[in-house]
Amino acid sequence: MNAWVHLTPAAVREEGLRGRPVVVLDVLRASTSIITAVASGARGVIPADSLEAATEISTRLGTDDVLLAGERDARRVEGCDLGNSPGEFTPERVGGRRVVLATTNGTRAIVRARAACPLMVGGYVNAGRIVGALEDREDAVIVCAGSGGAFALEDAGCAGYLLERLRKEREREVLPMNDGAWVALELGRRAPKSPVRLLRQAAHGRYLIEAGFEEDLERCGDVDSQPVLPVLRDHMIVASE
Amino acid sequence: MNAWVHLTPAAVREEGLRGRPVVVLDVLRASTSIITAVASGARGVIPADSLEAATEISTRLGTDDVLLAGERDARRVEGCDLGNSPGEFTPERVGGRRVVLATTNGTRAIVRARAACPLMVGGYVNAGRIVGALEDREDAVIVCAGSGGAFALEDAGCAGYLLERLRKEREREVLPMNDGAWVALELGRRAPKSPVRLLRQAAHGRYLIEAGFEEDLERCGDVDSQPVLPVLRDHMIVASE
Repeated sequence: MNAWVHLTPAAVREEGLRGRPVVVLDVLRASTSIITAVASGARGVIPADSLEAATEISTRLGTDDVLLAGERDARRVEGCDLGNSPGEFTPERVGGRRVVLATTNGTRAIVRARAACPLMVGGYVNAGRIVGALEDREDAVIVCAGSGGAFALEDAGCAGYLLERLRKEREREVLPMNDGAWVALELGRRAPKSPVRLLRQAAHGRYLIEAGFEEDLERCGDVDSQPVLPVLRDHMIVASE
Repeated sequence: MNAWVHLTPAAVREEGLRGRPVVVLDVLRASTSIITAVASGARGVIPADSLEAATEISTRLGTDDVLLAGERDARRVEGCDLGNSPGEFTPERVGGRRVVLATTNGTRAIVRARAACPLMVGGYVNAGRIVGALEDREDAVIVCAGSGGAFALEDAGCAGYLLERLRKEREREVLPMNDGAWVALELGRRAPKSPVRLLRQAAHGRYLIEAGFEEDLERCGDVDSQPVLPVLRDHMIVASE
């Protein structure tokens, strides 16, 4: 398998994604929140690349079944129904509803990667499903959301974890097609046993602990705990059947 | 020592650089060319963030002692005196002269990092000098030029190599202050013995080999072969005394 890993979304070019399966990762926390929402029975998650866009979409939809979720500096934005903690996206809150979500990095990366086919949202929590979806593919592209335009260890580490599982469990040869894939594979090979340790090492993980979101790290590193495959379909992320 | 490594220039903020020693790396090939020029007795290298800017500067200076160096897609731009191969920057060509240089990534990264104090240009070829200059510092920032806005293995690998030498040879404890520094340190610890092997693995290294510049990889990976310390002073990179 030919693997490309974009360690930040900056250098992602649409032509490199078109028609290829793409996995977007924002482990801390947008992609984990989206996966959790879909696993909790949300009708879907609509990603927005800004809070303004999210507010506009949610106003336009305007029905009772729509929730607005937004984060700034890790915290729920005032006026939003939900923040960006995976723990908030329970069946009670999101079951049967649509969630419009704007986060600092993750939803922007999704919007940026929408030329992909399919566009999948991944994390440690649905790693097995992602690995299964990529298993028979010739090409795989992973887009790491990163943090404020910069490299984020948790996303690169998760990319490496996924590629390493493809290699080990599914016996696929994984060929790094760019420098990002090469580094991700290195990280995957040498990863600590528990992803939570890596999340605690990452700058954004430490930031979240200080901000009082330590529990989120446990959730985001809980491998295969939310075995769904969220895919983008008509501007909304839904569970793949 | 507190170490920050920016794996791409995108997320570099001026306030993080101001007053701190900063090393800019574009191993393949701008920083190696600059170091070679300075080691070859050039009066200095004036970095420009575009070919247009470089042409304008060189026209404005307009004297016999000025050379224009520019690259596009790894090749010398027509009308320029020099390209971006370190081998071109010989004492015969550049001795006693000023070189105005515009490259795709490296000189832009230098222009972006100019709030640093001092701003140093580094590579494998002057690694010992860089390590010596950082040895007694409390903080060190390394800015990797990357490639087209994306992560480049050769720069991250060289950043790790420098930090690892600080750790091993100078017995400095190096604390990674961001995720980039963490990854660079990992790469530094596990680097192949010869940097040239890493350069051959890097996507841009393979591109240069295909374009006929294989010899440049040998030069760019030749550790301590150009023991000068180029620093930015009044818009020009000169040898530090």
